[in-house]
Amino acid sequence: MIEYKRLDETKAFPKLAALPIPRVDRILTAERIAACDIPSGGGLTYNWAASPVDEKILAALGELAEEQGLVDKYKLLADGEIMNTGEGRMVLHHLARGRLGKAVVREERDLRAFYEGERERAAEFARSVHAGKIVGSTGQAFATAVQIGIGGSDLGPRALYLALERWAMAEGRLMMGARFISNVDPDDGAHTLANLDLETSLFILVSKSGVTQETLANECLVRDALEAAGLDPAKHMVAVTSETSPLAGNPGYLESFYIDDFIGGRYSSSSAVGGVVLSLAFGPEAFEEFLSGAHEADKLALEKDISHNAALLDAMIGLYERNVLKMGQTAVLPYSEALSRFPAHLQQLDMESNGKRVDRAGTELGYSTGPVVFGEPGTNGQHSFYQLLHQGTDATPLQFIGFLEGQTGRDIEVEGSTSRQKLNANLAAQIVAFARGKEDSNKNKAFPGGRPSTLIRGGRLEPRSLGALLAHFENKVMFQGFAWNVNSFDQEGVQLGKLLAKKVLAGSQGDPALAAYARMLGLEASE
Amino acid sequence: MIEYKRLDETKAFPKLAALPIPRVDRILTAERIAACDIPSGGGLTYNWAASPVDEKILAALGELAEEQGLVDKYKLLADGEIMNTGEGRMVLHHLARGRLGKAVVREERDLRAFYEGERERAAEFARSVHAGKIVGSTGQAFATAVQIGIGGSDLGPRALYLALERWAMAEGRLMMGARFISNVDPDDGAHTLANLDLETSLFILVSKSGVTQETLANECLVRDALEAAGLDPAKHMVAVTSETSPLAGNPGYLESFYIDDFIGGRYSSSSAVGGVVLSLAFGPEAFEEFLSGAHEADKLALEKDISHNAALLDAMIGLYERNVLKMGQTAVLPYSEALSRFPAHLQQLDMESNGKRVDRAGTELGYSTGPVVFGEPGTNGQHSFYQLLHQGTDATPLQFIGFLEGQTGRDIEVEGSTSRQKLNANLAAQIVAFARGKEDSNKNKAFPGGRPSTLIRGGRLEPRSLGALLAHFENKVMFQGFAWNVNSFDQEGVQLGKLLAKKVLAGSQGDPALAAYARMLGLEASE
Repeated sequence: MIEYKRLDETKAFPKLAALPIPRVDRILTAERIAACDIPSGGGLTYNWAASPVDEKILAALGELAEEQGLVDKYKLLADGEIMNTGEGRMVLHHLARGRLGKAVVREERDLRAFYEGERERAAEFARSVHAGKIVGSTGQAFATAVQIGIGGSDLGPRALYLALERWAMAEGRLMMGARFISNVDPDDGAHTLANLDLETSLFILVSKSGVTQETLANECLVRDALEAAGLDPAKHMVAVTSETSPLAGNPGYLESFYIDDFIGGRYSSSSAVGGVVLSLAFGPEAFEEFLSGAHEADKLALEKDISHNAALLDAMIGLYERNVLKMGQTAVLPYSEALSRFPAHLQQLDMESNGKRVDRAGTELGYSTGPVVFGEPGTNGQHSFYQLLHQGTDATPLQFIGFLEGQTGRDIEVEGSTSRQKLNANLAAQIVAFARGKEDSNKNKAFPGGRPSTLIRGGRLEPRSLGALLAHFENKVMFQGFAWNVNSFDQEGVQLGKLLAKKVLAGSQGDPALAAYARMLGLEASE
Repeated sequence: MIEYKRLDETKAFPKLAALPIPRVDRILTAERIAACDIPSGGGLTYNWAASPVDEKILAALGELAEEQGLVDKYKLLADGEIMNTGEGRMVLHHLARGRLGKAVVREERDLRAFYEGERERAAEFARSVHAGKIVGSTGQAFATAVQIGIGGSDLGPRALYLALERWAMAEGRLMMGARFISNVDPDDGAHTLANLDLETSLFILVSKSGVTQETLANECLVRDALEAAGLDPAKHMVAVTSETSPLAGNPGYLESFYIDDFIGGRYSSSSAVGGVVLSLAFGPEAFEEFLSGAHEADKLALEKDISHNAALLDAMIGLYERNVLKMGQTAVLPYSEALSRFPAHLQQLDMESNGKRVDRAGTELGYSTGPVVFGEPGTNGQHSFYQLLHQGTDATPLQFIGFLEGQTGRDIEVEGSTSRQKLNANLAAQIVAFARGKEDSNKNKAFPGGRPSTLIRGGRLEPRSLGALLAHFENKVMFQGFAWNVNSFDQEGVQLGKLLAKKVLAGSQGDPALAAYARMLGLEASE
């Protein structure tokens, strides 16, 4: 029987917290760097040598993971246990990439077959678009895919598209460009539309519920523009939605692709939410490679031994930094311009999943949960916020990401080194600079050091490694949620704002403060 | 005589810290919202009603500002005092927008006249480009400006360009599109180049020192591409640099525009670093309007009474939240898609300026300084990290930004409201949701409330309001730096990484850990 208990109810946590804290700079050696290296799927490797974790801490983290049954809970989740307890839902994004355990059957439907069937339908659709068999209302072939969605229907797919756009161009695998419209600010959609050739644009409307306010408003903006251009919107738009939504099988769309309630928005890039746009952009094979990389990482995360489970270890190191070292943030620092929006996606993934203050049973927690996550690509960040990371008053754990090769194959040698060598030399240098610090009699030039980091590295950023990279972080966040005993799969924190916004739009604010702000922002207020 | 002392040496700080902390939800009324409203220049208004500041706290913040001589120090700075003490430099970015006090003369040169002269030279150059008098090496007119720079030479100008691109298109004032190359990752430059018409592209190389590693590598990548296309690089490139740099007056450039050591990178958008690209993109008049808006905000920040000085009050509220309420982050949340990269610029501005652990005299501080700054546009963020902001275990102060009108003039009414109304209704709703919270017997659906925010609002985002918005935050950061007694104008924290990266590239790591990471990342290592 697997128990659900809070972190402060475990025996292992107080033991962990009582151990001496190792100084990163004292333990960092070449031997340790070689030893602290674990495969994390898709050809990636996770290196935790620059973490404040010695043998005793590692053992205590393993004990805590064991006591909280983290891997067992992951197995239950994969087998279809109701892990999103508040909403009474299974959590099945892993199943979109492959089976990890039992078949998950609901109302006589095998859900792996369902997800795989939708993937195949999207693949067939993409092939027909690429072959010019499905064309726009004037008979022109489609050249651009435009995703309309917000939150999980936007950040993940957008980050993944940008991550692979250069790779696809270099490999001759860019089938269609992709664009994204998300914000209800009409200047977002208007600007994107102004820069599109509507006649060759295929819009993908993504809303699980079919009632997302922002997405429906942007759909109308797009339909208006299509009509104004003399085009038939029904021939330029597909829907990605649930089978019960008003968008399902609606003749207003060329085609509908389905998702269900068991894949949450921020985890939905592996489903049709990511699959349709990525299959259109890069071809269905690329999307399959992406899923296979993610599935590799998912399988590695089943390993019970923490020292061979990268996602589990990353989760527990993060927990140690959060709950014992009391660090409030985590920075994600990819040394890859292609990953420019990957930190924004992880920000959603992590903060929306574990930004919780009650446990699964609804009891308020007496300890910190999910940190603030932020980041920008290196070396750019080095010329920006790294100053605070090096010499600020609080330490922030850093998650570096790097690759041996570039995506475009283009490079240049200047002053004896290529740009790639400069990029990676900077990455190596930063890890060591944060860990070691530097003494200086001028205290303004001194670096305290002891600032922890981890490194995920790969050969090249391509669909398989990208899939594994995404799954690594999804699984890390899941394990942390289990350890904190929170529900990482709901988002009740978004409801109150929605409710009050509706009141404002209805002119019935109730609260005079709400009415005052509404008036100040140009809205009619009834009271 | 103005004293420089640490926050913990003041009489006012312990008094401030001893006051009862007001709960935002208890004090927030329609009357307070109307009362807590201060102009902040350029048609913007700063509203601090949803801050945890009552009359007593406000008085104590005013006393602290007075004791630390914040406005007096600003006046000294504006008059040319050496405020960047470690580097022995004046701090003169305000002077690029207008004179606030005495004339600043150095080596018989009036520096206001120097900055203004460079602005005028850039304006003339832009006019000649727009008129087709200055053309590329094949005689074709220039259509795109491409800035090559990193850190302060990239983030600010890029954020400002994006902030005004839609406005300029709608107003018929978009003279040239702009692109940006910053990362030493060669995939960044390669991708931008692949999507450019080189024959009509004008590159702006921005490096104050003329030796920035990343920028020079990208310059070579661009020159190679130009030569490979049969174009003459010298006719497609201008430099923005200091008069003593190797790039100054170099025949390899069409023209050189000058900056000096008294305007730091992150404060340089008002100088030629921002001026050349923005004048080319939107015309010199737009850049002048931007500067005039910033100058308006600069003048308002001279006001001694804290309750009439938006930048000063914002600074002191932030300090109260950081040092008394112990909040480690600040989120910047613009309800404007055009401001999509503005939070990334403020992240640099704030974290590089005040991410410091020693005071001006080099003594280690016993209190927290600059927070982590992050943010994304609303309503997008609502579907992402707002979950943690509402229901996470730690509170984060929020800086909302909103506008009454859009930039493009395009909008659509769906279900009884326009997209702009939805956008602003959400903004009003969020402020109140964070402040008030919501009780619920289901604790998972309860919101603690009491989460503080401020709001900067304007009529429309255009050059003048954008200038004021930027200056507001620059001045806020400056006042906080004075209050903490740190040097907000140096960045010694970036040096160690640069040094170690050079060692790696030279193959002389010294530290075996550095050699191990270098090898792991594909670099030759000597030991």
